[in-house]
Amino acid sequence: MSIVLGPHQYGKAENRIVRIYRDSPRHEIHDVNVSTALRGAFDAAHLTGDQAAVLPTDTQKQTAYSYAKEKGLTSIETYGLELACHFVDDVAPVSGARIEIEEYAWERAVVDGAEHDFTFVRKGQEVRTAAITVEGERDDQRSWVIGGFKDLVLLKTTGSEFHGFLEDDYTVLQPTTDRIMATSLVAQWRFFEPEGGWASIDWEATYSGIKATMTAVFANLHSFALQQTLYEMGKAVLEAYPFLAEIRMSAPNKHHFLYDLSPFGVTNDNEVFNADDRPYGLIQASVLRDDAPDAGPAWTVAGGFA
Amino acid sequence: MSIVLGPHQYGKAENRIVRIYRDSPRHEIHDVNVSTALRGAFDAAHLTGDQAAVLPTDTQKQTAYSYAKEKGLTSIETYGLELACHFVDDVAPVSGARIEIEEYAWERAVVDGAEHDFTFVRKGQEVRTAAITVEGERDDQRSWVIGGFKDLVLLKTTGSEFHGFLEDDYTVLQPTTDRIMATSLVAQWRFFEPEGGWASIDWEATYSGIKATMTAVFANLHSFALQQTLYEMGKAVLEAYPFLAEIRMSAPNKHHFLYDLSPFGVTNDNEVFNADDRPYGLIQASVLRDDAPDAGPAWTVAGGFA
Amino acid sequence: MSIVLGPHQYGKAENRIVRIYRDSPRHEIHDVNVSTALRGAFDAAHLTGDQAAVLPTDTQKQTAYSYAKEKGLTSIETYGLELACHFVDDVAPVSGARIEIEEYAWERAVVDGAEHDFTFVRKGQEVRTAAITVEGERDDQRSWVIGGFKDLVLLKTTGSEFHGFLEDDYTVLQPTTDRIMATSLVAQWRFFEPEGGWASIDWEATYSGIKATMTAVFANLHSFALQQTLYEMGKAVLEAYPFLAEIRMSAPNKHHFLYDLSPFGVTNDNEVFNADDRPYGLIQASVLRDDAPDAGPAWTVAGGFA
Amino acid sequence: MSIVLGPHQYGKAENRIVRIYRDSPRHEIHDVNVSTALRGAFDAAHLTGDQAAVLPTDTQKQTAYSYAKEKGLTSIETYGLELACHFVDDVAPVSGARIEIEEYAWERAVVDGAEHDFTFVRKGQEVRTAAITVEGERDDQRSWVIGGFKDLVLLKTTGSEFHGFLEDDYTVLQPTTDRIMATSLVAQWRFFEPEGGWASIDWEATYSGIKATMTAVFANLHSFALQQTLYEMGKAVLEAYPFLAEIRMSAPNKHHFLYDLSPFGVTNDNEVFNADDRPYGLIQASVLRDDAPDAGPAWTVAGGFA
Repeated sequence: MSIVLGPHQYGKAENRIVRIYRDSPRHEIHDVNVSTALRGAFDAAHLTGDQAAVLPTDTQKQTAYSYAKEKGLTSIETYGLELACHFVDDVAPVSGARIEIEEYAWERAVVDGAEHDFTFVRKGQEVRTAAITVEGERDDQRSWVIGGFKDLVLLKTTGSEFHGFLEDDYTVLQPTTDRIMATSLVAQWRFFEPEGGWASIDWEATYSGIKATMTAVFANLHSFALQQTLYEMGKAVLEAYPFLAEIRMSAPNKHHFLYDLSPFGVTNDNEVFNADDRPYGLIQASVLRDDAPDAGPAWTVAGGFA
Repeated sequence: MSIVLGPHQYGKAENRIVRIYRDSPRHEIHDVNVSTALRGAFDAAHLTGDQAAVLPTDTQKQTAYSYAKEKGLTSIETYGLELACHFVDDVAPVSGARIEIEEYAWERAVVDGAEHDFTFVRKGQEVRTAAITVEGERDDQRSWVIGGFKDLVLLKTTGSEFHGFLEDDYTVLQPTTDRIMATSLVAQWRFFEPEGGWASIDWEATYSGIKATMTAVFANLHSFALQQTLYEMGKAVLEAYPFLAEIRMSAPNKHHFLYDLSPFGVTNDNEVFNADDRPYGLIQASVLRDDAPDAGPAWTVAGGFA
Repeated sequence: MSIVLGPHQYGKAENRIVRIYRDSPRHEIHDVNVSTALRGAFDAAHLTGDQAAVLPTDTQKQTAYSYAKEKGLTSIETYGLELACHFVDDVAPVSGARIEIEEYAWERAVVDGAEHDFTFVRKGQEVRTAAITVEGERDDQRSWVIGGFKDLVLLKTTGSEFHGFLEDDYTVLQPTTDRIMATSLVAQWRFFEPEGGWASIDWEATYSGIKATMTAVFANLHSFALQQTLYEMGKAVLEAYPFLAEIRMSAPNKHHFLYDLSPFGVTNDNEVFNADDRPYGLIQASVLRDDAPDAGPAWTVAGGFA
Repeated sequence: MSIVLGPHQYGKAENRIVRIYRDSPRHEIHDVNVSTALRGAFDAAHLTGDQAAVLPTDTQKQTAYSYAKEKGLTSIETYGLELACHFVDDVAPVSGARIEIEEYAWERAVVDGAEHDFTFVRKGQEVRTAAITVEGERDDQRSWVIGGFKDLVLLKTTGSEFHGFLEDDYTVLQPTTDRIMATSLVAQWRFFEPEGGWASIDWEATYSGIKATMTAVFANLHSFALQQTLYEMGKAVLEAYPFLAEIRMSAPNKHHFLYDLSPFGVTNDNEVFNADDRPYGLIQASVLRDDAPDAGPAWTVAGGFA
């Protein structure tokens, strides 16, 4: 028996890069939070403190900022691929790189009915995410792209039931045929690389299409459980986008409890609710294409935690 | 010399009330966070622990929920006035009440190009606020209403300069004629009661008008300082709404630092920035109508802190 | 009628300064968050964008860091006075300065039973605070010092009752003679300058003495209301420290609800509770020395909000 | 090709259970945040909305509270095992359960030099964690226990170097032979079940021993990289506790940048630092016993995300 170093990675987390395009009077803004992580032959840094193979996290930061200009920063998936490939291709000890990105959306300020050229209001809704993993060099290089969002807060005031559930000695919940259903949705979808390569994917149209599809299912499906709603959302997305292998969802059931006004002689026909913070239900599920290519390291964070 | 009880108040904070209107197939939602505070003859509770004059904070909570149905919950200013007057009028020991409300906006989900009847997406932008104070009974009753918002995040990518400032031995800042200006604006405006009474104010139109006015000034004014921008925003609001006495603003200058890419031979013409978290500039200012009625207790939180 | 600029101030908020004393092998650490604000003749910056009187917030930052070395940073009250006097004395347009400071405590790591010379663990308990205001020059200069803390989380598992309260139509709360009482206490105490000047106050001993006094009253007083506990805590502090004029407290009543286990045939004699997040009771009160000097601008934040 | 349901789980997250032991005048408190998740034959809930196999998340909550009394709540690992086994053993459709727990430490208030019997101060330092997974029934039942903590904030003011690193075209970082090293450590250690069963482990002594060991290595090791420090911390823990299979660590390198005071003619010999928020280095690593039993599902969160 001996004690050994296990999987490990290191990088610079949460680089808050803002990229402005000002090539015309109508500026564009991309506002992101970039985390880089490198994997490879870094054992000596752990075992003896020898840094000879370690590209500093500061250097990773400088590169992330410089690439926002050198390579551009429009679709986060493309930017992440550029950055990951650079680390794997150009830094000898690096065998794998993982880039995680959050993007904060801005909308143009509307002034006198017209969109302003260079003034923006933070949109504040869901945060778009991406996680790009690249491994290997030249012909052996493989890459995995995950797109997604978090904090998309959806609510329907009717069209949701919950009954017919399993009961045991600890069951006191009453069934209901009409409740508020609300969630703050996290979703991540794994692309597989199409014949035409990553460049053949329209990342922007795909992102807004997925969001619209999921919202539509949430709205239109008469729900008997949040589980059912999630599955149908995921299924609709995979049906619409053949280059998606898988979608994973994590959905808190944000409880809105009907408030008891009967002590005051007041009727409450699903009109007044208490929005509770904790605890919340938490439904986590994935929907897969059964012939999807293996996920490889797409979801892996070395040495880290679920 | 003796030690005495000073100003005090008590209440129930952060009641998360959600009010649904479902009188037609097209539901409406109002999602608020309500805090109540009562002032009055509560010395005995402090001095001897005698609760005979103390209406429990739980009762204040029940009332806040019940009033969402009994009186309705559309404009938060109206709801806050109803609640505050109730406590002052109907609970003997209460001489004053302050109701603070936050409102979270939802927009209708758009499905196949149409707004959905009962599905909503949390808007996520600025939080609307109100603070209502009522004092005294019957003919002596007076009320003060403050509207506002917080977390309206605005950014302009050009049209902002900063130079010509005072320098001393600790000054190293370089002047600039083109910078990003960004803030997460907090604003509170104090109404005075018009001849026609509070009911004559269109709270909803006023709110959206103020927000639009401030956004337009932020966008259109070529700025030489955030101070100047704030003053002009406040002035434009007071000019547009004669029933406003005063507006107070607290504006962090959210620094976006031009990233130095010169070590890498990369030109950065105001294109790549680091969005820094802390420290930030913080500009706080008020704009007043010089004949405005006195603020009275409108801004006061008894026993609390700035 | 005309529209005018009201009270205003500006500064640099949340400078995260860490000061290490390493004059002996046993290092010392002071970890603070400093916000500066200046008041004075800055109207032109607002009205016309002219910055000639405006010392940049960046300069305020540089000064705050440099003073941590030049003047030292041990007691935050002393450091804040140094900084505030500098701005008022040395920067011509400045007529008043307010410095707000938070301090994060560290304790020495204990290794093999001994305190380590240069390794520290963040203590994580309450945050110490100070707010220093200085106005006027030379003989007219006056200064106000507020000390305090926030986030001191106290809980007692018995020794707290709540009954005999006022009831109305919305009262459903049941009285109790034994409940958990818990709060996350914010307290701020206003010093007045003693005969011997500020330098005659032992800020460190005073701080730990006040905290110990308040904790002891919370523990020892059999409580009939959080109001009563707060008043007795404040009174004990003023009695112990004659150079304190006033103490203000803001105390959420962090509800711990007895969990109903009766449906499962399980007895719950004040043993299992649900710690609820929101809503919470909120008691705010001040205790004063009736001959205390006037607070002046000690509590004032110009242009800002409660 | 078809679209199928992938891994999924559901449960009730963040039950804020407080358990008081009051069997003697000297009360004890255990303050936890419990999340339950069930895995098994729940496909119908997703595919058709049929809830017949679904034990409501509300029931899971009731059970978690009731077990705090029925089974007791002292060591979180034991409580988590009881709860997980119950769901797997007693609820037919459940084939696996995962219980995640956070524990918030309280220390006794010290009054007049003595520990108080029933008054506590929230300790505020690191949060203790556990994750228990149970699968299978009767002879086939297996269980996995992970202990850990998060938010242990450690800092050393000297004894840390960083130099000799790899350089490329984007490297501007200067090497240093004396810097502040600080982190907010997350660690999780996987137990394997000893011959004597889980009951033979002293969870409390193990927890405090691991924390002390890691702190001692952080303090005593002269560090050439955070990587090295982490590895040595993990190695020391595995050496001290033979029933640990593995430890995973996630350590932000919380940068403290030496502040440049040279423009003001002030020397700064590692005395004044800026504590930066973002970006931060992030080192993630695991240390393993090379003959450790397989991790199985110990680290898995079905359908969720890293």
